[in-house]
Amino acid sequence: MKPIHVQRLTRVQQAMRDEGMAQLIVSDPASLWYLTGETVDPGERLTVLVIDSGGSLRWVKNELFRLDADDIPVLTIRDGENGIRTLAEDLMPDGVIGVDGNWPSRFLLELQAACPRTYVNGSGPVDRVRAVKDEEEQRLMRESSAVNDRCMARLAAWLREGVIEADAAEYLKGLYREEGCEDVSFPPIVAFGPHGADPHHTVSGAALAEGTVVLLDIGGKKDRYCSDMTRTYFFGDVPDKAKEVHRIVCEACGTAEALVRPGVPLADLDRAARRVIEDAGYGPQFTHRLGHFIGQTDHEAGEVSVSSPLIAEPGMIFSIEPGIYLPGEFGVRIEDLVLVTDTGAEILNRLPHSPYMEDIGGTNV
Amino acid sequence: MKPIHVQRLTRVQQAMRDEGMAQLIVSDPASLWYLTGETVDPGERLTVLVIDSGGSLRWVKNELFRLDADDIPVLTIRDGENGIRTLAEDLMPDGVIGVDGNWPSRFLLELQAACPRTYVNGSGPVDRVRAVKDEEEQRLMRESSAVNDRCMARLAAWLREGVIEADAAEYLKGLYREEGCEDVSFPPIVAFGPHGADPHHTVSGAALAEGTVVLLDIGGKKDRYCSDMTRTYFFGDVPDKAKEVHRIVCEACGTAEALVRPGVPLADLDRAARRVIEDAGYGPQFTHRLGHFIGQTDHEAGEVSVSSPLIAEPGMIFSIEPGIYLPGEFGVRIEDLVLVTDTGAEILNRLPHSPYMEDIGGTNV
Repeated sequence: MKPIHVQRLTRVQQAMRDEGMAQLIVSDPASLWYLTGETVDPGERLTVLVIDSGGSLRWVKNELFRLDADDIPVLTIRDGENGIRTLAEDLMPDGVIGVDGNWPSRFLLELQAACPRTYVNGSGPVDRVRAVKDEEEQRLMRESSAVNDRCMARLAAWLREGVIEADAAEYLKGLYREEGCEDVSFPPIVAFGPHGADPHHTVSGAALAEGTVVLLDIGGKKDRYCSDMTRTYFFGDVPDKAKEVHRIVCEACGTAEALVRPGVPLADLDRAARRVIEDAGYGPQFTHRLGHFIGQTDHEAGEVSVSSPLIAEPGMIFSIEPGIYLPGEFGVRIEDLVLVTDTGAEILNRLPHSPYMEDIGGTNV
Repeated sequence: MKPIHVQRLTRVQQAMRDEGMAQLIVSDPASLWYLTGETVDPGERLTVLVIDSGGSLRWVKNELFRLDADDIPVLTIRDGENGIRTLAEDLMPDGVIGVDGNWPSRFLLELQAACPRTYVNGSGPVDRVRAVKDEEEQRLMRESSAVNDRCMARLAAWLREGVIEADAAEYLKGLYREEGCEDVSFPPIVAFGPHGADPHHTVSGAALAEGTVVLLDIGGKKDRYCSDMTRTYFFGDVPDKAKEVHRIVCEACGTAEALVRPGVPLADLDRAARRVIEDAGYGPQFTHRLGHFIGQTDHEAGEVSVSSPLIAEPGMIFSIEPGIYLPGEFGVRIEDLVLVTDTGAEILNRLPHSPYMEDIGGTNV
């Protein structure tokens, strides 16, 4: 095992002991790669890494999946064999067993029946370790967001009257490929006018017209690490109300970003941004949490919301993305990724928040 | 609700009663679309359809997801609220509760703690209904495989000395887009020479050379329904051993396909194909099950293996895909999708099994 994996595993095992977990069953492909460097995507087949808090490790693995390294012992399952029995026989006789929160319930129900024991959601130890990015990860996240800044600027500059939402999304995918991304982080949101009022809009056949508020929520995946940012632009002349709403959202975003430093409760960030929007009279139109953690997947465990118990720590990376949604009219959202540093914060997205495309080298005529 | 959804739900509720399930929690996006026509992909958020075997239905749904129809009652969860509590309060006071087999364990563990009851893997009723395709689905699957036949022929014809595996996969994705597919069914496998000996090979930077066995396992997603087929071609002169192995795999595939009719145990299909390969001395080199069910996802519940308890029924669609894998040398696999009809079988892939590209309009020089 490489030193970085030993280091990550050691942190996870410490977190397991802190939570009184004797064993942990890890199935999430991103966690498996993070902890071992192996690329394994089991699909419907059973393939897990079993970690003992004391130190030992092994794979319970369908033989169809090849591993690069052979320094972790493997219990092999063939197609047609009952892998859960193999796993059950390998578990310790007692102690709390954590299972990956994303493990399909069918495996857990079968294991609970085959091996009655105390099972708990075991994602905590891995998630908490993954939430705090190490230096190598910070470098990759910085690079991924730099790509995203460039792609956003190019996409905004490319927009013309008559462009179709779905075509803009396709164009954007080409930009990410050009930049060496392996994929998008999530299906791009290109939302014209009223479509922007749906925070999870799916791109449609709508064409861009003069005087439209354009919401772009986009991200690419580069060397496994995700970017994610939102900008809202004015294409031509838009109503004064849109300009006012944009100013409010910018203020909410800036207010939260300015508060980020080690020790701040993440719930306070949500509250601060929300207060700006509430004071402006749009509280009910900010319908979602302020942000989410991000890394190998666009949404990782950990949220920035009023109910979040988390406290900012150096190395954490999350989104700050306040929005105001006016059904039938338009939506405005501004989103940056933020890295907590030793003394404050580094905003990974450097593209201005301005709604005027000419401010970023584009054009809105 | 549209008649087709009422029909599908009625079949599921009958299956629930057959299995003694009082309520069922459905979370799989493909099942949700199948049963309601709604496109909902909850990601990490809680969004489920609760079905009572007696008849009633409701959504427990994060408010961020919009529904097209409003004829199913909705219990709404906002970001930051405890959705599991909302769900728990809505469950019947007794009776067995089925949960979607793919539901993340973290939801199940929380529900088990909040609401002690008997939980079982509840995918059975939906999976069994989905395994038997209705007429509309059969039409879509036929069309999707016709697209795949054309894409396979074009891909094979496009191969030239020096072509890179990864570039062939990109070219193929363009063909699917041209054919109106929304996506691939799975990352295409383009495997040159020894790479074909890994049944789950990921495309690499390897270049095609004269005298290579080329394994192509590809599928597209058209109007939500997946195709999936494998052909193995000879690029130039290949060793006699490859020709012999190709003949054996073809015979195994044809033998199993000829046995498909209502009433045949699917395990018998696997055994029949395996016997052909074993008799030829390659038993240990056929390392996987014979096939899998397919529909909205490439691998749906239900397998064609020696341990499968399933019996063929009209409307079932599955793959038949024997293979022989010789590490360091090459791999051969032939795969068709097969629809069980009232009297026998319809092979959805009509492209010949021949390893010579000129037989399908391509060229191998």
